[in-house]
Parts: sequence; C-alpha cells; structure tokens
Amino acid sequence: MSKTAAVLVIGDEILSGRTQDTNTNHIARFLTALGIDLKEVRVVGDEEGEIVAALNALRGAHDFVFTTGGIGPTHDDITADAVARAFGVGIGYHPDAYALLEARYPPGEFNDMRKRMARIPEGAALVANSVSGAPGFHIGNVYVMAGVPMVMRAMLETLAPELPRGPTVQSVTVEAAVPEGVIAPGLADVQKAHKDISIGSYPFYREGADKPFGAQLVVRGRDGAAVERAAQALEELVRSLGAAPQRINTADSAPKK
Amino acid sequence: MSKTAAVLVIGDEILSGRTQDTNTNHIARFLTALGIDLKEVRVVGDEEGEIVAALNALRGAHDFVFTTGGIGPTHDDITADAVARAFGVGIGYHPDAYALLEARYPPGEFNDMRKRMARIPEGAALVANSVSGAPGFHIGNVYVMAGVPMVMRAMLETLAPELPRGPTVQSVTVEAAVPEGVIAPGLADVQKAHKDISIGSYPFYREGADKPFGAQLVVRGRDGAAVERAAQALEELVRSLGAAPQRINTADSAPKK
Repeated sequence: MSKTAAVLVIGDEILSGRTQDTNTNHIARFLTALGIDLKEVRVVGDEEGEIVAALNALRGAHDFVFTTGGIGPTHDDITADAVARAFGVGIGYHPDAYALLEARYPPGEFNDMRKRMARIPEGAALVANSVSGAPGFHIGNVYVMAGVPMVMRAMLETLAPELPRGPTVQSVTVEAAVPEGVIAPGLADVQKAHKDISIGSYPFYREGADKPFGAQLVVRGRDGAAVERAAQALEELVRSLGAAPQRINTADSAPKK
Repeated sequence: MSKTAAVLVIGDEILSGRTQDTNTNHIARFLTALGIDLKEVRVVGDEEGEIVAALNALRGAHDFVFTTGGIGPTHDDITADAVARAFGVGIGYHPDAYALLEARYPPGEFNDMRKRMARIPEGAALVANSVSGAPGFHIGNVYVMAGVPMVMRAMLETLAPELPRGPTVQSVTVEAAVPEGVIAPGLADVQKAHKDISIGSYPFYREGADKPFGAQLVVRGRDGAAVERAAQALEELVRSLGAAPQRINTADSAPKK
C-alpha cells in the first residue's frame, strides 16, 4: 500500500486572491517523484481554530501532512501555536532554533517578535531553512514549512532524505487531435479493459489549429508494463478514429528531481 | 454578517502536480469583489467517496460552495453523480441540457458519452456555458462548474447576477523596505490598536536592491475609514523606522470586475 499525504496551506492571502498558491503544485510533484500519493489539499485562513480543525482531520486521515505558511515573526504568524494546540502539547523556545536565530542578527536586533520564530511545539524536531534561517519543524506525521516559495522548496529538499520512497506512479500522455466527446466511448472501454491503471482525459482547444479540439489522455499506474499496454491501446483507439496519436512529455511523467 | 463560501477543486491532475490550479485564485478574486468571504478550499481526486465527503462538509459549513472539474463527457468525469449522492437525490437527463447539447452536434454524433453531460441531479438548475455548451448546475447552495479555466470563468460570470452582494473588503497595501522582523513589534501594536481590521505581512527579498529585505503590509476590513486609519498608522510606523512607506496597488485592492 503506498503512503498518502495531504497539504494544508495556511494564509488569508490565498483566500482573498491576493496570492496565487504555487506551493501545492510544487509539493505535489515532489511527492509524485517519491511515490507518495497526495490525496487532499486544504487551504484555511490565519485563524487558529480553523488551522487546528483542518490539521487534526488531515493528520488522522493520511500518513503525512505538509503545511505551508504562518511561521514568520509577525503577529499573523500563528501556525506553531495552532500545531501545538492540535497536538495538545506545550510550546516554547527551542534551544537550537533560538541559538541559530540569535546568531543571525546583530546584537540588540533579536527582538521579541523575531524570537517568536524560535517558538516550537514540545517534542518537535527542526527542519533546516538554508535560505533565511528560521526553521520549520516536524512533529508526529506533520511537517511545518514556510509559505515563501523559495524557503518552502529549500525545506522540502531538506526533508527528502527522511521521507519514505515508494514505487512511483508511471505516467504516459497520449495526445489526440480528436474532440473529447468522440474519443470518450472508446476511452471508457480502454479503462474497463485496464482496471489496474487510471486514465484521465484533459481536453484542449487550440485556436487557429487545423483540428482545434483535442484531448490529452493521461495513463497512470505503478505497474509500468500495464501503463504501457494501456497507452498502446489508446494509440490504437486514436488511429481507429483517423488521427495520429502523439506521445508527449508532461510534468508528471518527467519528475523534476 | 457577511456570507461565506468554500471552493472544492475536483481532479487527479491537480493532486499529481500535472496541472497548476488557477481556478481557485480566480474564484477568490471574484468573491472578494462581491463581498463574499472565501473561508476554505479543498482539493480532492476523481473518487466519488472523497467528493461526497468534502462536499457535504463544505456545504454544511458555508453559505455557498463552488466546485470545479469533472463535468465533461469522459468516464473520469463523475462530479454530477457525486453531487447527486451528496444531496441524496436521483440523477438523469435534464431536458434543457439534453436539447442544447443535442443541437450542438451533427446527426449521429451525440453519443452516449456526450449525453453524460446532460445528466444533472434532480432539482438542480442549469448554469449556462457560453464557451463550449455543456452546462454546469446549481443545487441547494452548491454551484458546479467546469474545470477548464476559460469555461469556469464564463460560468462564474453567468452566476454573478444571482449571487448576493455584501459590503466588500477594502484593502490598502503599504510597502516598506524594512526587514519583517524589524517592523514586526510595531506592526503588532498597530494591529492591537485597530482590532476591527486585519493586517497581514508578506515579506519579500529583492536581489540586487539597495535594501533587499522588505514587507508588504496589507490592511483589510469592511470599514474603509478604519482601514485608512490603520494604513496611516502603518505609514507612520515605517517612517519611524527610517524608511519611506509606499502605497501600492495589489490585486485585491483593485477587483477585476
């Protein structure tokens, strides 16, 4: 059984539309490359009760939870407190976090708000931040990371060695310049004949193209041979409809790392 | 009391990382412009049980739920069935949806899979699709829209007249070339003195800039005068730290429509 994960994005700026979240997509690709199945994502605002409720739901349902956002020095950064409450543990300065932050600032500039970044739930281990110093942390099955994408990505790299590897999902994308509704009946048959893989269909419209309507058919599964068999069946299907199937490289067939 | 909303994004392609979701950000801005508070977002895969559970949780907790994805003609499009199950109602061809789809295709090309797009839960009203015909629908407090961004946006425009308007959140962004940790203590004081608004702090790092560390301080609230008072307090704070505050236009202070 492969491991499952959830992502919890924390921040009013995502919900107001001010900021386009890109961390989830990065984490999704990262997990796909490790062979861990991302099953659910939630976004909540900077409200402790909301964070606690979402975190407890997700950590009970999945092997791992990755959170982003809310671990900076300002008053609206409340993730560490919310995580402590969710786990029912205390929170205080973590000596290592305190020491590494103290060393970053000139004398007198390690103020009380900056010290907030050293407040870590009891029992948590630090997650190094090679970009800007202030660490994330890891408690139980929850990994708490920064919201700034560059920092979040660095933390994820730090975490990679301690996460389990599973058999990765293999993926082949067959593109067909055939309207989705035309290919849909055959597609359903191919899916029925290949129950051990999943087929997703993603339509496109290319203005000005000779045949503007088409679909990318994405075959995914952990058994590479089964994926290949289904992909070939799809290619046959596309040819039977008078079009030339094309295999294309998509993001999740070519993991980033 | 302002109305609240949730977004439910449905699709394996978001969870695998193949596709970067942009619909949520668009809906967030749309709701912000209407004065409706987006409180929560969830992303689940193409699994009926997951969709039903998420939908029932969200529709119970919020005034409106907007879903995207899973209403096309292919076997992996299962949103309509999941919504029917969540509401405990039947599902079948909606005569208007059937008629408008039938009229779109040449004789003989309205196949069984395309007919799937006319399957609508009992009691639902259609949401017009000015782009590609196949409608979304609206049942109870749930609005079901396509996943293709161009189509989703058109559906949202169609819905706009039937959604309530509330007092919109006013927003002023003050940018300061001051490290977040330096401004954080004063920021907390300003927040304490202006409890009726919320202040978010979003740090930035501009490589090569004279003062590369800074933060955008976003003041949000429904009382424009209160927002303005807090923004002025922030500008004073920034000046007291020897920097020149700058008001900037951000996406959510200038609604798109």
